[in-house]
Order: sequence, then C-alpha cells, then structure tokens
Amino acid sequence: MDAQTSFLDTLFDRGILHESGVDGLYARSALFEDVIRRFEDYVIGLGRDETDEAMVFPPGMTMADFETSGYMKNFPQLAGTVHAFCGDTHDHMALLECLATGKDWTDGQKRTGLALTPAACYPLYPIVARRGALPEGGLTVALQSYCFRHEPSKDPARMQMFRQREYVRVGSADEAIAFRETWKRRGSEIMTALELPHHVDVANDPFFGRAGKMMGASQREQELKFEMLVPITSSDKPTACMSFNYHQDNFGKAWNIRQRNGEPAHTACVGFGLERITLALLRHHGLEPAEWPDGVRKVLWG
Amino acid sequence: MDAQTSFLDTLFDRGILHESGVDGLYARSALFEDVIRRFEDYVIGLGRDETDEAMVFPPGMTMADFETSGYMKNFPQLAGTVHAFCGDTHDHMALLECLATGKDWTDGQKRTGLALTPAACYPLYPIVARRGALPEGGLTVALQSYCFRHEPSKDPARMQMFRQREYVRVGSADEAIAFRETWKRRGSEIMTALELPHHVDVANDPFFGRAGKMMGASQREQELKFEMLVPITSSDKPTACMSFNYHQDNFGKAWNIRQRNGEPAHTACVGFGLERITLALLRHHGLEPAEWPDGVRKVLWG
Repeated sequence: MDAQTSFLDTLFDRGILHESGVDGLYARSALFEDVIRRFEDYVIGLGRDETDEAMVFPPGMTMADFETSGYMKNFPQLAGTVHAFCGDTHDHMALLECLATGKDWTDGQKRTGLALTPAACYPLYPIVARRGALPEGGLTVALQSYCFRHEPSKDPARMQMFRQREYVRVGSADEAIAFRETWKRRGSEIMTALELPHHVDVANDPFFGRAGKMMGASQREQELKFEMLVPITSSDKPTACMSFNYHQDNFGKAWNIRQRNGEPAHTACVGFGLERITLALLRHHGLEPAEWPDGVRKVLWG
Repeated sequence: MDAQTSFLDTLFDRGILHESGVDGLYARSALFEDVIRRFEDYVIGLGRDETDEAMVFPPGMTMADFETSGYMKNFPQLAGTVHAFCGDTHDHMALLECLATGKDWTDGQKRTGLALTPAACYPLYPIVARRGALPEGGLTVALQSYCFRHEPSKDPARMQMFRQREYVRVGSADEAIAFRETWKRRGSEIMTALELPHHVDVANDPFFGRAGKMMGASQREQELKFEMLVPITSSDKPTACMSFNYHQDNFGKAWNIRQRNGEPAHTACVGFGLERITLALLRHHGLEPAEWPDGVRKVLWG
C-alpha cells in the first residue's frame, strides 16, 4: 500500500475524515474543522490591517463569469458545471422509468447558469469590475470559497471539493508584484511558525493537452506562479499548500477592471489550501492536536 | 418594486451581499458571515451535551447516495448534478471552437460521480450505515453543509446555494420523535431569545408534479414536517427558517441503517437555514448588528 492510501486509511480509521465512496470527497470531523477555523483566524489576523474588505463565496459562480475566466479553455479536465432537470410531467415519467430500471438518467440534465468555482478569486473580479474604476491605491480583499476540481485521487491532499482562503490584490503592476512578494515572505514565516518543513518553488498550472505544456513552460519562465511546498505523503513530490500568483492584467482585461488612469488592472493572489495545510499539520505533528508542539499550539490556540 | 427585490437591493447597496448576475447566488460580506458564525456557535452550544459527534460536509455528495436518497424522484426540478469534460485533444479542439464562436459547449459535458447536496443530512446516512448496527441509544450528530436548490429567485431568502446546520437523530421511532419534539420547543426558545416574530406550523416538501401534490398532502396529514416561520419579506408568506422533520424509517431502509434489534433505524432532523436566520435578524433588528437589541447581542456576542 502506498503512502497516500495509507495516510487516507489512517484518517478514516481515526474518524478525522469520513469516506463517501468517491475518491476526493470526504466528510470532515469536528477536530479537522477546528484546525481549519483556527488557521483561518490566524491568517485573517496577519492580513487584517492591510485588507479593505472580506467576502465569503458560495461554492458556485455564474456560467458567464466562468466562461470569462478562461478556465474551461485551459483546464477543461478539472472543471465542473451544474446541470438540472428542466422538464415537464411527461419528462418526469421518463426520468422515473430510468431511475427504476437503473438506466442513465443524466443525459436529460440541462445546463444551468452555474459552474462550480475552480479557484476562489474568480467570483471577486466581476464584483470589483461592476463598481467602476478602482480606488486610489487599488484594493485588497480577503476571501474564502469552496472550490471544485475533477481529479479523483487516493491522495488525501488532492480532494475534489476543498476550501481556499485567499488574499487578492487589484491595482497596478507594481502593487500586485509587491503584494505577491510580501506574501511569499509571510508564507514562509507562517510555515516556520507552524514548524512545518517547507520550501517555495516556481510552478505552473496544469494546462490541458500538448499546447498546454507550452503554456505551462511559459508561465514558469515568466515566474508568474510560486508554490509553498510541504511534504505530506511524499518527500519527492511535496504538496502545494499555498500559491502566490501574479496574473498580470489578464483578469483586469477579461472583466474590464480599470485602474484610475484607465489602464487594465493587474491582479495577484495568495491562496491557502485549508485542507492541505490541516493535513500537513496532522502528518507532521500527529493526529491529536492537543499534543502538538507548544509553539504550534500557541500560534493556533493562542 | 416588491418587498423581496427592495430588501435584496438594500443588501446589495449596503455591501452586505454582493450580486453575481444570477438570482440566488451572492457573495457574503464579513458582517453577514460574522452573524452566521455566531449563530452557529450559539446553536452548537445548545446541543453539545447530547451530541455524539460533529461533521462538516463538502457541498457535493456521491451520485450513488444521491440516487438512494430518492431526491431525484421527488424533487427533480430542484436538484443539481455535476458534469465535466472527459474528452481528448480532439474534443478539446471542438470545445475551443464552441467557446470562441459562442456556441453552447455544455452538451459535451459528461456526468461525474457527484451531485450537489440538496439537504445537509443526506451524506450522513451512508456514513452511519457503513459502521454497522447502531450503538445502544442510537446516535445524535451535529452537521453543516452547503446545499443547492435550482430555484432562481429575487427573494434574498431563497438562495440557490446556502448553508444548513442540522442536528440528526438516528435510532428508534420513539427516540426520533422525542428528539423532534425537543427541538421544536428549543427552536421557539431560540427565536424568542433572538427577539424574532415566529410561529411553528405543519408543512410539506415541494414534491414535483400532480402526483407530488398528493405526497405533500399525505406528509402534512401525518405531521412529518414542521417549519419555524418568520416574516422576512412578507407577513402573509413568512419564511421557513428552521424545519423539524421525522423521516420514519425511510432513510433507515434506503441505506440499510439498523437498530441494535435489527429493525431499520428511524431518523429525525432539525435544520437551521443559516442565511435565512441571518436575513431575518437583519430585517427585524436593522442592518447594523452593533445596534441590535441588547438581549440579542448578549445571545450572539456573549
């Protein structure tokens, strides 16, 4: 049995996660949620003074904004769209017949106006765009969302439904880049305070297909994405527990977010993978948070 | 402009919710989330002594369990299924072509193993079933989940994606019924403590179609469902902010949950509509929680 399956089974056995029958979809225990909440409170505290506002998003976004994001073009294999029954009594009879005989009934499902949110910051951009030109000095927003990625896996750190907490900077190129550098530094300080082995490395998103390989290489070359890597089930392939992203003016252009000078806004974000960080803590400090090192407990329990 | 749209616009104007372009899908502000969190902490405290364990679910459940629940049979119009792109490079080219020319690209989306959770307690039952026969005295679980219902509306209290906190009782018929009666009483005490106008009434779920009307009538006749009604945007049609449900042994049979004596388990649940209760508080006590009545603040802020 490999390290991923073994760690996952341990989490099931201890009732820290509960299996559902689908890889990457798990119920969380009170213990797991308590760690997530305490980590979130800690990170919210670190960024509070420089944050203009905070938002929490539902797990879905509008199909229109999902299309605008470009996610379906670049990562179709990971995206999820929401479909629903839109029929009448006659269609319902056919549906009941399918359900009763075990036939696939999902072909009749129609698209709705919603997609599952693939990255926590996407729903923010249209909200900011709707307000008109940015205020002087741009905007910094703290947010949280459930995200969906269609990649069933036995790796407990690769869930299909998971939460990201983010800070997003919207402003000039200089402001976005400075923000990202600040949080790269802070990310290392956080991991040091939590006594987790870690290092930051340049990274790329999992663009689809052959052409996608080139896009990933270009993203690395331009150093647009960095990840905070922590070994969870493997030292060779550590897990990205945070990411530090500079989007240039891609989202500013896509949603028409304007700086005060009329130029498209530049954006950057730092994302914290809440389940992954919790799993890293459980892996390195043990399955009983009451017995974690004093320094870690002081950070999270105060 | 009617009362629903007017209240929704006020919430947008004050930045308490943020519009997305789709009715029933909104970003929540820090103020809104703070009320939700405090209400949850209050309700968790009320039930802590009699709760065996707590869980938090991701916003989706397995398609297999979704089918077992019977939701698609009874409420197909409200359900959401998750679909994904499962093609190769060739299919990706066709997808890109659709996206570029504005053609509908969602026909190519295939079912995944997931549906959006329509009611917070459904993912619990297969977890309990997997453990074998119930412990003596059954089980009481506290849980929380995002839920999805496909019913776009201008009523801010009718969101498509919203959170339910629940207590679920799994045991004998007597245990399930006693639990429901306890929480009906407690629900009224909560609403009194929060100084909200309220009353409890028998209710039925929105079963689909003509045959569904009869199922709803039968559910009312057997008094299986009660709701805690609070006027939010209408006094004539108050909003269900809690519900108190006795499922008989329907879920015990569906998932094969057994009492110690081998009989199918009976289940009951009390659900708290977290967004709805928050909206009721904002409606009746004003949009500035710092100015809410002392009694209400004492309950939520301690």
